Amino acid sequence: MEGHPTLQLRIFDLNCWAIRYLSKRRQERVQLIGDMLRRERFDLVLLQEVWSEQDYSNLKVKLGGCYPFSHYFRSGVIGSGLCVFSRFPILDTLLYQYSLNGYPYMLQHGDWFCGKSVGLWGRHWHGGHGRFALPCCQLHAEYCREKDAYLPHRLVQAWELAQFIRHTSKAADVVLLGGDLNMHPEDVGIRLLRSWTGLQDAFTEATRFEGCEDGCTLVPNNCFTVKTELMPFPLGIRIDYILYKAVSSFTVKCEELKTTMGTAPGTDIPFSDHEAVMATLHIQRQGQAAGASLSTAELTLADVVTEARTEVGVGLRAAQRQRYSTGRMAVLALLLLLLQAVAALGALAGLAAGQPFPKLSFSLLAFLAIGVLLLATSLHLFHTIEVKMLQGTEEQMRMVLWALQEHP
Amino acid sequence: MEGHPTLQLRIFDLNCWAIRYLSKRRQERVQLIGDMLRRERFDLVLLQEVWSEQDYSNLKVKLGGCYPFSHYFRSGVIGSGLCVFSRFPILDTLLYQYSLNGYPYMLQHGDWFCGKSVGLWGRHWHGGHGRFALPCCQLHAEYCREKDAYLPHRLVQAWELAQFIRHTSKAADVVLLGGDLNMHPEDVGIRLLRSWTGLQDAFTEATRFEGCEDGCTLVPNNCFTVKTELMPFPLGIRIDYILYKAVSSFTVKCEELKTTMGTAPGTDIPFSDHEAVMATLHIQRQGQAAGASLSTAELTLADVVTEARTEVGVGLRAAQRQRYSTGRMAVLALLLLLLQAVAALGALAGLAAGQPFPKLSFSLLAFLAIGVLLLATSLHLFHTIEVKMLQGTEEQMRMVLWALQEHP
Repeated sequence: MEGHPTLQLRIFDLNCWAIRYLSKRRQERVQLIGDMLRRERFDLVLLQEVWSEQDYSNLKVKLGGCYPFSHYFRSGVIGSGLCVFSRFPILDTLLYQYSLNGYPYMLQHGDWFCGKSVGLWGRHWHGGHGRFALPCCQLHAEYCREKDAYLPHRLVQAWELAQFIRHTSKAADVVLLGGDLNMHPEDVGIRLLRSWTGLQDAFTEATRFEGCEDGCTLVPNNCFTVKTELMPFPLGIRIDYILYKAVSSFTVKCEELKTTMGTAPGTDIPFSDHEAVMATLHIQRQGQAAGASLSTAELTLADVVTEARTEVGVGLRAAQRQRYSTGRMAVLALLLLLLQAVAALGALAGLAAGQPFPKLSFSLLAFLAIGVLLLATSLHLFHTIEVKMLQGTEEQMRMVLWALQEHP
Repeated sequence: MEGHPTLQLRIFDLNCWAIRYLSKRRQERVQLIGDMLRRERFDLVLLQEVWSEQDYSNLKVKLGGCYPFSHYFRSGVIGSGLCVFSRFPILDTLLYQYSLNGYPYMLQHGDWFCGKSVGLWGRHWHGGHGRFALPCCQLHAEYCREKDAYLPHRLVQAWELAQFIRHTSKAADVVLLGGDLNMHPEDVGIRLLRSWTGLQDAFTEATRFEGCEDGCTLVPNNCFTVKTELMPFPLGIRIDYILYKAVSSFTVKCEELKTTMGTAPGTDIPFSDHEAVMATLHIQRQGQAAGASLSTAELTLADVVTEARTEVGVGLRAAQRQRYSTGRMAVLALLLLLLQAVAALGALAGLAAGQPFPKLSFSLLAFLAIGVLLLATSLHLFHTIEVKMLQGTEEQMRMVLWALQEHP
């Protein structure tokens, strides 16, 4: 590798908001996205919320010429919504499903059905001289910032994502993470992810920036965003990221970062309710591995992990309460059923003359009790899983804190 | 590293069969296992089916002196049942839950509730000069060899396990896998796992062997095994494994492999219904990375992946049929409900004089329809997930086959 040539890499990331029957002007927008990707010829394209496999297939056909390699990550009832297009061969893929992802009974928030996950794919560049690890992901949405019931779930996801990246990226030279993380830059989850993996934020590192103010990716200018949700943030919020790091003897520099600005360039409608993020990275091999000074970083890491652990603890106690109350409800329903069975048997045995209860309301009550029993039992099982996963994450965080203190 | 010293590593692996209220003489056996582990002072201990966290805590207290480091992997409703004890620090853990793990409605087979998964933990040896990746796992049980409905699920698990090991072990020097794989040595799943990861079987590689004939770990001699299930296998079957490979410039040799033989040494009852597997490995650093000739190995790999893909395809078609029939049942139940609603409205509107239907059977029918609708919808969702995961695995296998043909 004489002269250490630079690899220029253009990456495109977009949450496409392509939900069948629900997203506005979906087909038109998917077509627009496809046209633009074909025109722009990026090196790597990371898409989220492509919920319909038909949309993926259409994109695949359209982009076959300039992005011969692609992958759609399947999971959950609806799918993961994640797909990737690449100019270079995809060597291998791995799907990691988060252990917690919202509640199945929150139908209006739908996250549970989506099987949110992180998809990893590796590829070689420049004839096999370097290797990427490229996670593409989406975390649980935030539906209410003031009273965010999903914060513990999102923190567990951020932690699992960080652990996944740490464990899978060790043989890579460069790690690139793109996706809708559903977290503001200063949120504990994103600080946890960044400090635990060492990933850098393309927006803060970029030499040149062009796009929405503060790099926001959910902006009031966009005609598809819900204006009331953005009320507290007049500029919008930044929740879509391209993050990167060099693992071995490489350096990565972000030369340019761009976002779309409410509408797709050259048209009057946006690609999606999110803005697209486009980064141009320069990757170069170095003689020496870039060993950053880690002592202050580790101090921050310990603080962030402690903060995240506290939040996970709050979620754990809430989950334990819910497990208890659903368990109690199931027991009560069971008792009612038993009582009814005793009463019915008593009536059959002729203890009472004639008919002691009106048959209809008696059977209605029994069916109600059965319904409550089934529902409460399912919820109890679900919250039991939730408690286990939160406990597991808290335990892992405790272990990391111990390791940071004992073996800095 | 002058002189390349050898590290001797003693590993213990056991499926403990410690299910609360169900496993015979559980507490006595867990105590026996603890006593023996304290006496024998292995370097690494991998346990499966420790379903009760209380049992784990008791073991942890008892073994604290000789195995100061331990971890319990939490997942699913009941837990993963996996735990590890180690003489040396555990650096980090990661839990990967298989995407498919049986059916929730097969209560008698219980696998779905256990959240079977693979736990990974890394550790340094000899002052940080080498690094282990140590997956500990259990795959879906085989309940009927002749008509094995879970084969596709177990194959998906074997594939995911192999992918997980490939992606996470790249930075390790040595990979050690221990666990109850629920597969015979010649089964397609184990061949897939071994050929796709390059792991070697401690039993076939061992210089010395001592234990049950053919290394069996489920033997008729053991008083807890179900004799009728072992009828076709008079010697027993081998389904618990210790597998290993050297990733970088190390060599691993299995000096000795032992199994227990029906009863725990020095007592009259067995540790479990499975036999324990104990391996003594010699690990040495080499000047040169051991690059085996891969061309024939890759040919076998392509064959094995093709065979596994066929089986996954069979499972996929079965899952598609079940998805279809449960969907049809849900639609029929919905139609019945609608019909009843129309009839009831008709009666209310006074189209018929008096009462056209007996109230009780009418409401019973309605509740039955609601019950069927809920059940069929849940099953339909479940089989939809199953179809997605089987499709995903088939797609990944297709990609690997392509890569093997195009870029050998």
